[in-house]
Amino acid sequence: MPYFDAASSAPLHPVARQALLASLDEGWADPSRLYREGRRARLLLDAAREAAAEAVGCRPDELVFTSSGTRAVHTGISGALAARRRVGRHLVVSAVEHSSVLHSAAEHEAAGGTTTQVTVDRAGRVDPGAYARALREDTALACLQSANHEVGTEQPVAEIAQECRAVGVPLLVDAAQSLGWGRVEGDWSLLTASAHKWGGPAGVGLLVVRKGVRFAAQGPADERESGRAAGFENLPAIVAAAASLRAVRAEAAGEAVRLRALVDRIRSGVAEAVPDVEVAGDPVRRLPHVVTFSCLYVDGETLLHELDRAGFSVSSGSSCTSSTLTPSHVLRAMGVLTEGNVRVSLPPGTAAQDVDRFLEVLPGTVAAVRERLGAPAASSPAEPSDAPSLVVDSLGKRCPIPVIELAKVIGDVPVGGTVTVLSDDEAARLDIPAWCGMRGQEYVGERPAERGVAYVVRRLS
Amino acid sequence: MPYFDAASSAPLHPVARQALLASLDEGWADPSRLYREGRRARLLLDAAREAAAEAVGCRPDELVFTSSGTRAVHTGISGALAARRRVGRHLVVSAVEHSSVLHSAAEHEAAGGTTTQVTVDRAGRVDPGAYARALREDTALACLQSANHEVGTEQPVAEIAQECRAVGVPLLVDAAQSLGWGRVEGDWSLLTASAHKWGGPAGVGLLVVRKGVRFAAQGPADERESGRAAGFENLPAIVAAAASLRAVRAEAAGEAVRLRALVDRIRSGVAEAVPDVEVAGDPVRRLPHVVTFSCLYVDGETLLHELDRAGFSVSSGSSCTSSTLTPSHVLRAMGVLTEGNVRVSLPPGTAAQDVDRFLEVLPGTVAAVRERLGAPAASSPAEPSDAPSLVVDSLGKRCPIPVIELAKVIGDVPVGGTVTVLSDDEAARLDIPAWCGMRGQEYVGERPAERGVAYVVRRLS
Repeated sequence: MPYFDAASSAPLHPVARQALLASLDEGWADPSRLYREGRRARLLLDAAREAAAEAVGCRPDELVFTSSGTRAVHTGISGALAARRRVGRHLVVSAVEHSSVLHSAAEHEAAGGTTTQVTVDRAGRVDPGAYARALREDTALACLQSANHEVGTEQPVAEIAQECRAVGVPLLVDAAQSLGWGRVEGDWSLLTASAHKWGGPAGVGLLVVRKGVRFAAQGPADERESGRAAGFENLPAIVAAAASLRAVRAEAAGEAVRLRALVDRIRSGVAEAVPDVEVAGDPVRRLPHVVTFSCLYVDGETLLHELDRAGFSVSSGSSCTSSTLTPSHVLRAMGVLTEGNVRVSLPPGTAAQDVDRFLEVLPGTVAAVRERLGAPAASSPAEPSDAPSLVVDSLGKRCPIPVIELAKVIGDVPVGGTVTVLSDDEAARLDIPAWCGMRGQEYVGERPAERGVAYVVRRLS
Repeated sequence: MPYFDAASSAPLHPVARQALLASLDEGWADPSRLYREGRRARLLLDAAREAAAEAVGCRPDELVFTSSGTRAVHTGISGALAARRRVGRHLVVSAVEHSSVLHSAAEHEAAGGTTTQVTVDRAGRVDPGAYARALREDTALACLQSANHEVGTEQPVAEIAQECRAVGVPLLVDAAQSLGWGRVEGDWSLLTASAHKWGGPAGVGLLVVRKGVRFAAQGPADERESGRAAGFENLPAIVAAAASLRAVRAEAAGEAVRLRALVDRIRSGVAEAVPDVEVAGDPVRRLPHVVTFSCLYVDGETLLHELDRAGFSVSSGSSCTSSTLTPSHVLRAMGVLTEGNVRVSLPPGTAAQDVDRFLEVLPGTVAAVRERLGAPAASSPAEPSDAPSLVVDSLGKRCPIPVIELAKVIGDVPVGGTVTVLSDDEAARLDIPAWCGMRGQEYVGERPAERGVAYVVRRLS
């Protein structure tokens, strides 16, 4: 039963399991105590810190263990912003950061700060020039992920770190998705990561603050972890996190080559075997193990259920698979299709035949979902018609129905004619333009309607 | 090698270990995902929540898992204060709360709020009437521990909860030390606890917010755990925490009787066998497993080292054993001696012969430390003298030297004469009055000196 959602959480690495078990017996005591159990715990903690620092490429005293990657991000951003409050209250982030970064930015704004979101290109990549232009005299902090968690695109961290250094702005790098694969290059100032993403246990994040970077931890004082991570140290998990990071790194170079080839196989295989599909993200400058694609006329939740029934665990950025009914902000920022979205992220050790089997199963699964929804056949010829324009009422219908109804009637208007889709589904705003791009039709624009929004499409072919 | 510091952290309960191992295999996936690994994780999380809620005596949807007890306290206090900000910004705590509560209070004051610390009696117990009088019209929140972590004294939670209800103030109970022993009785509003205190793993705290209690979680938004505990759920640890809480509770009644008797044996044994000792805390209304005593003329750190060498792991509230060089705020609030302090907290399963062996070893260990410091013999008769007053310069000397030097010269002044001790050690402020109380001498008071503080003692006998 292949699990293809390593970017959410990787199964526990055997070394992590082993280290966790060993330190359940050795590392349960309070490392700040003077007796032997405490001293033993302190030794384990120090050794874990050294191992993690070596993997990150920093000094041990620059690194603290937090209770999660999310907590590392929250603490890192709030502490860096507070320490530079006199400089200003401006924060720069990319539009495709993890929600923990964007939620920190929202909190900063709610408290009176300002944020600039730097846009990305269609591959999900930030332009260093655009990022540099967002830096201002009053910029207290800049944040950038090392690689995107949904589409795998790598960001130009080293270049942007240089731009930030040039103007004296600290750069916080969210390395949650990439740290297992290697160090983050460049002259960054702060770094965060999450152990369960590299096969370590849940409950451990890393926060690195380079010497000389101003930092003022927020929240109630607590003497543990240099005052940057309140609460009793989760030592067995910390030991397991450090040990597994080292183990994963030892295997990273070979496994990266292997998974990169498997992902390439998925990228080309999906594009060949599934009609009306968009494979997203940078095909080259990307994480080895992540690929995302979106299927027109497909309901993401149904597709996930069908793939799960077929034995494949994948995730989705489609709105209908999230509790908020909002499509992925990453896909939205990239301007790519969000409906029928599937993210495949291969854990280390993924067997090639599991990938092949996935590629065998996928086309039929997508076709079945489309058939059930009454989607138009990919090859359906557009019948000539004389009606100069049509209105499709998709009010109250969720993604992907509005796009399906649009596709069904586009042939009913003549070339040059328009179809207006009335929809109150948030995903339509993204998916109708994306459909136009994929099908060579013109997206005219949107305007408010009596209920919902009217999206206007002109038939070009 | 007996470990007698369960109040810092209990060794992992076998059931916790077993549950942790089982859920490392079953519970590593993201419980918010729709695929089978995610659904399985969700089931485990739901079952753990139900088990923990049953043990607490609350509804499952009132309980969230945090990353530590400290984090539960921080989140609980900040969320409750923020939600009642319109009522006012006054916070009530007892003077003997855990540092996580007092640090939250300090942060609240730094942000413009006010705090009233309710004092305790010499046994460390809060008076319900005094607590009730501290509640004001603008009181947003009241906090009280169920039992004290250093001296074991139980607080009158049910009575104070009633007082709080009567005036509409929510009461947050820090149940970190007691939850393994039983439910917290009374009509409290919020409750916090920490799994590693009851033999569960590190990395798990509980935060309970009763339905109807206003709460506004602070910090960046995060959808997990009802928005009250940011970060990926540490599921194996959560499962282990809930399973071990249930297991510990099943053994609690019998083990409480047994440990209570052992602690009584320590209380009386120490008082009998060690001269110049003060056993602190309520002898009856107390946790079953905790006892604290302080030894005059003893350096706490040396005593801990000697006990560790003899095979006993205990902790201390003495200033010289803490990184801050400040004696325990609990002992200080109680007005008891802080020098040579030892806290013994017995983990479940402690063997009676280990306790007996401790009582055999302790008197000699204390005597040896005293001899090394040149402390006066307990029975040393005070020689008559004519010098009406004396000044002892203990500047630059740490606890317990100032008290030892005082004890050495008190016999050199006549009855009615005074000894003035010059000291710049913070502990002297507490320990000189405490020494006077123990030795039947009069503590006249303190005044600023050219360097440090002058403490004046009058000889009465």
